[in-house]
Formats: sequence, C-alpha cells, structure tokens
Amino acid sequence: MSRIAYLGPEGTFTEAALRALEADHRIPVPGPVAQAPTDSTPAAVAAVRSGEADFACVPIENSIEGSVLPTLDSLADGPPVQIYAELTLDVSFTIAVRPGIAAAAVRTVAAFPVATAQVRKWLVANLPDAALLPAHSNAAAAAEVAAGRADAAITTALATDRYGLDTVAAGVVDEPNARTRFVLVGAPAAPPPRTGADRTSVVLRLENVPGSLAMAMTELAIRDIDLTRIESRPTRTELGSYMFFLDFVGHIDDAPVAEALRALHRRCADVRYLGSWPTGDPAGAPPPVTDEATTWLTRLREGTP
Amino acid sequence: MSRIAYLGPEGTFTEAALRALEADHRIPVPGPVAQAPTDSTPAAVAAVRSGEADFACVPIENSIEGSVLPTLDSLADGPPVQIYAELTLDVSFTIAVRPGIAAAAVRTVAAFPVATAQVRKWLVANLPDAALLPAHSNAAAAAEVAAGRADAAITTALATDRYGLDTVAAGVVDEPNARTRFVLVGAPAAPPPRTGADRTSVVLRLENVPGSLAMAMTELAIRDIDLTRIESRPTRTELGSYMFFLDFVGHIDDAPVAEALRALHRRCADVRYLGSWPTGDPAGAPPPVTDEATTWLTRLREGTP
Amino acid sequence: MSRIAYLGPEGTFTEAALRALEADHRIPVPGPVAQAPTDSTPAAVAAVRSGEADFACVPIENSIEGSVLPTLDSLADGPPVQIYAELTLDVSFTIAVRPGIAAAAVRTVAAFPVATAQVRKWLVANLPDAALLPAHSNAAAAAEVAAGRADAAITTALATDRYGLDTVAAGVVDEPNARTRFVLVGAPAAPPPRTGADRTSVVLRLENVPGSLAMAMTELAIRDIDLTRIESRPTRTELGSYMFFLDFVGHIDDAPVAEALRALHRRCADVRYLGSWPTGDPAGAPPPVTDEATTWLTRLREGTP
Amino acid sequence: MSRIAYLGPEGTFTEAALRALEADHRIPVPGPVAQAPTDSTPAAVAAVRSGEADFACVPIENSIEGSVLPTLDSLADGPPVQIYAELTLDVSFTIAVRPGIAAAAVRTVAAFPVATAQVRKWLVANLPDAALLPAHSNAAAAAEVAAGRADAAITTALATDRYGLDTVAAGVVDEPNARTRFVLVGAPAAPPPRTGADRTSVVLRLENVPGSLAMAMTELAIRDIDLTRIESRPTRTELGSYMFFLDFVGHIDDAPVAEALRALHRRCADVRYLGSWPTGDPAGAPPPVTDEATTWLTRLREGTP
Repeated sequence: MSRIAYLGPEGTFTEAALRALEADHRIPVPGPVAQAPTDSTPAAVAAVRSGEADFACVPIENSIEGSVLPTLDSLADGPPVQIYAELTLDVSFTIAVRPGIAAAAVRTVAAFPVATAQVRKWLVANLPDAALLPAHSNAAAAAEVAAGRADAAITTALATDRYGLDTVAAGVVDEPNARTRFVLVGAPAAPPPRTGADRTSVVLRLENVPGSLAMAMTELAIRDIDLTRIESRPTRTELGSYMFFLDFVGHIDDAPVAEALRALHRRCADVRYLGSWPTGDPAGAPPPVTDEATTWLTRLREGTP
Repeated sequence: MSRIAYLGPEGTFTEAALRALEADHRIPVPGPVAQAPTDSTPAAVAAVRSGEADFACVPIENSIEGSVLPTLDSLADGPPVQIYAELTLDVSFTIAVRPGIAAAAVRTVAAFPVATAQVRKWLVANLPDAALLPAHSNAAAAAEVAAGRADAAITTALATDRYGLDTVAAGVVDEPNARTRFVLVGAPAAPPPRTGADRTSVVLRLENVPGSLAMAMTELAIRDIDLTRIESRPTRTELGSYMFFLDFVGHIDDAPVAEALRALHRRCADVRYLGSWPTGDPAGAPPPVTDEATTWLTRLREGTP
Repeated sequence: MSRIAYLGPEGTFTEAALRALEADHRIPVPGPVAQAPTDSTPAAVAAVRSGEADFACVPIENSIEGSVLPTLDSLADGPPVQIYAELTLDVSFTIAVRPGIAAAAVRTVAAFPVATAQVRKWLVANLPDAALLPAHSNAAAAAEVAAGRADAAITTALATDRYGLDTVAAGVVDEPNARTRFVLVGAPAAPPPRTGADRTSVVLRLENVPGSLAMAMTELAIRDIDLTRIESRPTRTELGSYMFFLDFVGHIDDAPVAEALRALHRRCADVRYLGSWPTGDPAGAPPPVTDEATTWLTRLREGTP
Repeated sequence: MSRIAYLGPEGTFTEAALRALEADHRIPVPGPVAQAPTDSTPAAVAAVRSGEADFACVPIENSIEGSVLPTLDSLADGPPVQIYAELTLDVSFTIAVRPGIAAAAVRTVAAFPVATAQVRKWLVANLPDAALLPAHSNAAAAAEVAAGRADAAITTALATDRYGLDTVAAGVVDEPNARTRFVLVGAPAAPPPRTGADRTSVVLRLENVPGSLAMAMTELAIRDIDLTRIESRPTRTELGSYMFFLDFVGHIDDAPVAEALRALHRRCADVRYLGSWPTGDPAGAPPPVTDEATTWLTRLREGTP
C-alpha cells in the first residue's frame, strides 16, 4: 500500500489530481493508496523525506498564477527527492448550494479569495448582488454552505459531492484554458522506464557570471533538446547567485539527455536531478535519435567504416 | 498632477510602495499625485492604456511567491506600456487591535489567507488558540477589526494607521527576507536617463525551435550583459510557442545593451521593450564600457591607428 | 606617381597581377605607376614599411598550394600595413620557344620546379622525352631559352612576350581552376569606401584556451557574417599560442562588421586589422542590413515606438 | 614486411622521417620495412589505396610554408585512408662537397629552389659569390655534386652520406625552429590504442551558412577539446562550399572526443575521420576526464545517488 501525502484539505483540486493519477495507473507502486492531507505543499514533501509518506502529490505550475514556488523550493532544498509522474487538470469551479436552494435565493457566497479572483466575471453576470464571504480553502467554502453559514460556495466538484451539495453551475472559470499541473514526488530511485514521451527536470545552481546560463542553454541546444520551461530564482544563501528550474523533453535514457546531464554536472556549481517521467503526450520535440551516429562511431573504432 | 492607479484597496502594500516611490522622487512627472485604487493588477495597467491614469503602481515579483503573473501578462499583451521606476519593499505584517484591547484578550484574528500562510509560525507561537476569520485583503482585515467583527487583524502598517488601530506586533513574517518588488508603469516615452545602475526588461516571443533560447541568451552573454531574471511562459495563442520575460543589468543607452536589443529584434519573432529605469543599486555586473574599442574602431576607419 | 614593389623578377605572375590591378583602376592612388621587383614577398612588404614603396603587390593564396605563408607572416608581424585591393589570376603557363624552333625539335625544357609540378601531365603527353632543366623562376626559364641554354621554357605569357619568344602552347596547367589571389598592400590609412561587395581581413591572437576560437567564431556567426577563410598558425614567440587569419564578407562600415570588430578587440589578446577592400564580386553572403533594427532602437530611445 | 611508399627521391627529408618512425617503433606493423620512393605526395597515398603499399610516409605541415596542401587533398578526396603515426623533423640543410674540396673553392652551388629560399642568409654570409644551379630536389642537388656538375650542394644529411660527400656545414637554416611534420598513412583499421597524448584529425564539409563553422567549433569547445589546427579550403566541386581540416588533442576513445565526433557526424554535410594516433608529447590540453560525471549519471539511473 502506498501512503500518499497531498496538499489538503480533502476535496481540493490536489486530491482530485491524486485520484486521477491513481485512476490512470500512474503511481509507480501498484495497489491500494492511503491518502493523507497536509496543510501546505512543503509539509507534503517533508512527509516523503521523513518516511511518513511514500509519495507526495503537489501542484507545481498553474497556467494563470505560474509556478508554485513553495513546491519548487521544497524540491530544490533539503535531501533529494524525485518526480515520478505528472497530471494536468483543467481548473474550473463548481457553484454549490444546499439541496433545495434556488440560485435566485443566494445572498451570500463563500469562497477562497484566490478562487474568487478566477470567477469574477461569472459572479458579476450571475450573482451580482451576493455578498462574498472569504473561506480558508475551496473545500472549506463547501463546508460553510453545508453548515448553513453561507448560501452558495465557489468550490470543487469533489467537495460538492462530499458535502452532499447541489450543483448550480459547473466548469465555471473566467479564463478559458486555466490548468494546473501536479506532480507525484517520492524518494530517489531508478526513474520509470523511457516511453518516448517523457519529461526531465533539473535544478541548476550557477555562478553569477554573465554567460553561465547561455553556456548551460547551449549544452541543451547543441544536442537538440527542447526546453519547455525555465525559471530563475535567486538563491537565498548567497547574493547574486541563482538557481534555474529547467524542464526539457526527453528521458535520462535518451543518449542526448544523458550527455547533456553529464555536461551540466561538469559545468555547473550544482545540478540537482528531479527525475525523468512519462508525460503521456509529447509536449515538444523529442531528443534526436543518435543510433546512426553511434553505429558510425563504433565502425570507426573497429576499423570497419 | 500625476494620476496613479494602484492595486487596492487603500492601505495595502501596493499603496505603501507608491508612497515610497513618491517620497523617493522616483515618479517621472514631479508634482502632486492623485491615487486611484483598482481591484486588480490588470485593471491598474488598463487605466494607463485607457488614459484614465498616467501611471500604474503594481507588484511584479515576490521573493516567496515568485513572479506576479497577472502583472507580467498585462505588460506583455495589449498596446505597449513601459516601466519607469521600481521599488522593493520588505514584506512584513502588523498585528493590530482596537485601542485598549490586550493581546491576551484576542480570540479572533481577521486575515487575508495569503497573509495567513506567511505568519503561520508567529500565530502558533503567539496566538495559538485564536480563530482565523478570512478577509478579502490585508486592508480589509483592519476594517473588520475597526468594525468590531474581529479582535485582531493581520494587516499593514498603513492600514493600522488609517483605521486608528493599535499595534500589537510589527515586522511579523515567518520567512526572513520576504520582499516584493513593485514597478511604475506608464505609456511609452523616452526612458529615464542612464544612471549606471539601471535595469532593462524585455519580453521575447521565440519560435519553438530547440536552440532559439540559447541563441537569445548568447546575444546577451557575448556582450557581457548580466541577466538577472528569466521566466518562460507558454503563449496562449499558439501551441508550443513561448514568451520569455528577461531582466538584465544596463540601460538602452549602454552600447552593449543597444547592440543586444538590435540583435534580438532581428532574431526573435517579437521583442517587446518594457523599459530601462534606475534601480538605485547595481543589482549585478553592469555592461562593459566599450569606449576603448570604439576609439580603436574609429581610428581604423580614419586610418590613424 | 605610385611606387609599387612586387615579387619579381620581371615577367612573373605577380607582375601580371599588378598590371591587371592597374588596368582595372584598383590602385587607390591614380596616376602613373613605377614598378620595382623584389626578390621575395617579405622584401616587397618591407619596402612599404620603409617608405621606399607606396604599395606592394604580393600573392596571398593559391588554389593548389594554399596560403602563401611568407606573405601572411609579413602582414602579421612588424608595424601595421593594410590591404587596399585584390586580384585573382587564373594560373596557366605558356610553353615558349625561340622563334623558328619547332615543338618536335625540343630536347630540353627550362622550368621553375614549382611550375613543373603543375604541368606534369602536359609534359608527359606532349614532350615525354624532353630533359627538364631547373630555373630560378618562371621568368628565368624564358631567359634561359632566349640565351640558348634551353630549347623551351615553361613560363608566363608576359615573359614570353618580353623575351621575344614564340608560343608553342598557352593556358597549360594540369589542374583546371588553378588560381592565385594577389593583394595590394600599403601603409595604414582610411579604407576604400564600402561598395557592398567587400572583404575584411584580420589576424587574431588568442589565448590557448579551449573555446577561445569558438568564442571568436560566435562573434561573427551571431552577426551573420560570412567567414570565407580561416587558417591557424602557431605564433613563434610563445608555445601553445596561436594566430588566426580570417577573411570575411563585408566592410568596416557595415554595422555588423563594425560591431564584430569591436567585440573581437575586447575579447582577443590582439586583433590586427588588415583592411576592408572591394572584391568586385560578392564572394559570399553580405552582412545583414540592420537599418530596420536601428530605426526600431532609435524610436524606443525617443519614446515614439 | 611492410611496404611503405614515400615522397622521393631517396635521400630526402621524407626518407629521413620514415627512418626515424621505424627507429622509434611507430610503424603499426612490426618487422622489416621495404621502402618505395614516389614522385609526388599524391602518388604515395595512391599506392596505399591501390594496395601496392601498406603505408605512405608524407609531409603534412611545415612551420615555414604551412600545410602541404597536396597531402591534405590526397587525404580528403578518394576512398578513406587513415593516419597511424606522426613524426616532426627539424628542417635544416647540409652543405656538401666532394671529398677533398675546400669551401673556399666553391664556385657553384646546386639547390632545390625551395631550399635556396630557406638558407638565403647563410649563403650571403658564407658563399656570397657562388652561382646557384637549380636542382630537382634536395637529393638531386647532392647527385649533381657527385657527378661533378656543381661544387657544392644544399642537401640533406642522408643524401650527403649516400653520395659519399663531405659536410662543409650542417644544421643550416635561416629561420630557427623550422620543422616539418610527417604522417604515416594506411588503409582504414582500428586506430592505435589511446595513450593519453594523442591527436585526432577530421575533415568537415559544411554548408556555406554563416554560423555552421561556429557551430562545429562549439561542439568541440563545449567539451573542452583543444583544437590545435584549423584550415579552411574551398571544395572544388561546389561554389561557396568549404572543407575544414581540424586537428585536436585526444583520441576517439576519450569520451569527449567520441561525443564530439558523433555530434559532428550528425551536424555536418560530411565528416571524414582521418584517425587518432599517439603524438608522444601532449601538444595541448588533453580532453577532460569525465569519469566522475559518468558515475554520477549511472547512480541517477540506478536510483542510488
């Protein structure tokens, strides 16, 4: 049985992501799953480090808000951990009421303020006169409605279901294509096998010399490796020194990726490998196949060109 | 008189940043300032575009949460706007109560949930039994206390003052060195003069070809230009196409920066110039002085080497 | 009147090149020309340095033998000199006899040994039984025939004419497309005006660090400058230190070339500029026109994008 | 028994180089050697291709004259051949006379004109009044003296010995440090084992795109491979297309060299491998040892970091 920590409380998008990972058989250890909500992303990752959990399911990137820095920082600092799977969820909200309440009767709406910002247009169009009551999380908003302290909640489908509420509107979000990417983090081990549609992630620490980043980029570019994300972040320990979070297409068992990792290891003050895992879809140009060049080299070495 | 829109409501950190910019004489148009709070960062930038405001003061980067993506997106999309000044504020909270209330008597604490996450340790140590009441903003938390609906607020010094509250604790924040950088955005015009300690910011749109980013990095590195921030962001319009937000040390009137901008303009699908402005402190290695090389070149052209 | 030193003796290919430069009006100083043969390439260049000659006409590159290193060394060492014009001659030989002598009667052939190597196939086919008598130069071979010490000469058209000989065969050469490039060297002065079909030449001295040459190449490549020749040569003064002779398409007044020269000057241990001069034909891709990018930059600086 | 063709005639520097290679046990096939002079460098290489010879000993580079282009062209065109050994000879001449002749009695000097150019200063100082008689080769000059057709020869120590002449002066050369590098060329086979002081040589054919050479240089530089020679040469078949002759430090069995060769094979229109062979001395910075980075990578793959 896998014990999996996740950013709670129950009923949030993160729990929904974890359930989808399980349904898709993307959790490396098969068998039943025991879920344990935590009150922050760092706490979920810390549970993996302490051995309390086998894996942590945490959000890493949101198409509206950008990277989830507490997650990135948890991965970059402390003993090594590794990513084994990912899942991208469309973010959209459910407007939930107690059974039997009509939308027209809604006077108060409980909502996590971050969610409020994402459904503003919908509220203006549909509930222009309702008072907003802040809640501690998307799931807590549903709990407020269930407890009778608010008429409606901006919440998740999962929490609506769990608290036995009725759905007034589903799939509510102002910005189309809002998505959050979640990752499954565990202790270091052999990465999942190469599938041909994989992602590799690293954290580089570079000297603050003009050109050190261009050098690192060149190590990838010269091997035709497709970078899909880059984000700089000042390290907190030393002024003018940076960390870079990089995602690229390919697996540690792709020869160009292996070469590039070796090269970055030699060049950078530090490289932390965050894993290679399947993405399901290509997400960019896969690294080139170098079999023909390898055959050519082998023949030269053997003297049979 | 400059009309300046800012992310409201009154009493937030953004208003504090705007007051500091004014006190430091960093607003390009001297004279009195009329402030106008807006309910979002994009709304403040939109006020500049519509002509309702001369400038907008908005947060762009937070040392804990990272880039403020709604701000970056507002700068990258729509008609051009330009940055004229910046200010970095230490982020810390004030715990405020109504006059005469003792800390020991605090049973409920009003707080914006994002702020709650940043003072968690302080609360556990100092108010372990208080109930948290979510508020819509840091300033709204103070209003809740003033209105008698909460005993204490996690709020700003500015709001504490404005609502006539007493300070129980100041400078409260779990993570030391938490800072937010704010920028002053206006319509395109000639940048402020070069000071020798300047920042230039651009948004690049690149073809999704492996190597296109390495090429752009090389255009900067080869000219010894010190990159201080990079962040990729998928464009929403076209799959597999990216925007990159880049900050680097130097001014459009530094010869290496001018050369690099020209080169990026030629190379990239699009370059949006977000401005060159003084930072007050160097923030990295300034671009090299090329006077000697220019003199050498001039002599070659004149035939007087 | 221009005094022009050239690699003698009279009647060689170098004199033919000089006459062609004069006929094409490629000599910077108009008016009559006084020619002075020297006994080596370095001697011709030395005459420019000493002021005895205004210009030197010397071979610099041969399509069969490669670079003429004594010429390159003369340009790279000593006080600066500069190239003002170039001319490429098809290399082919004239087989010359005294008037009235039939080809069938030829028993001995005078030839400069370098020339012998270039007409070997012709000799086997046409004069298989003739004995070869070595001569000091192509012109000296004709003199031997005129003096009656050989029956035929492998020589130049110019020397055939000058010694009043008859032509048995013209345009003789084993390797088709054999060509020699000659340059006109003078004291440093303003280069000839940009024509749009120009060549620029430099000598770089680089630290023997892996990557220093790649860096210099990148300074050209990133500006889309077309390199048409590169040749490394160990410096004699310091072990493991190299000179590089580079030719590229463009003129010092092309903005990308000016930028690249400035950058190389900053980067390299030493850059010696050997001039920019018209080639008559493009000889490669001209450097990109950067007017549009310059206009864009100017507008940004003025705030009128 | 190895049959080895060399640039003749007997008594030249090339024969001396071949003898030194044999004495140093640098010929891959042990046992006796049968030498066969040819009348040109291309002829010696052609003998290897036709199977008439097992190896060819040919000059490839001279510190005064530069690359020996007929040798380079022979290696670059036609069926593949490979270099197995190299030897660098100090070039200096012997002034030889018939036994019993005093230096003061010398009136005529036989010399190969290329040699004449290299001992000009010595002649002016020592035999200012002697007449120069051109000879077909350095060895032929000695033969002229032996036959009584000249008083002295500018020749090699080997030819002096072979023709039973007396040495008037040895080690004669104007330019100190004149050296010629010779290589031993054979049919393709497994390269000699890595020694840690090796050279690898390739011929690249590149599209004439600005930047294609910089790209190839970067493939070497990024792997810290030390380039010791580069020379461009227009291909004769296609206008604006170039070959590049590159020598670098290292062996095909050095991991960085293997990686770079594979990368060049993928990038370039064509890569011809000319071999990896021991140089005896380092001749530059050896490629970096990448064992630690390889171990790191292996541990990541096994999940045992």
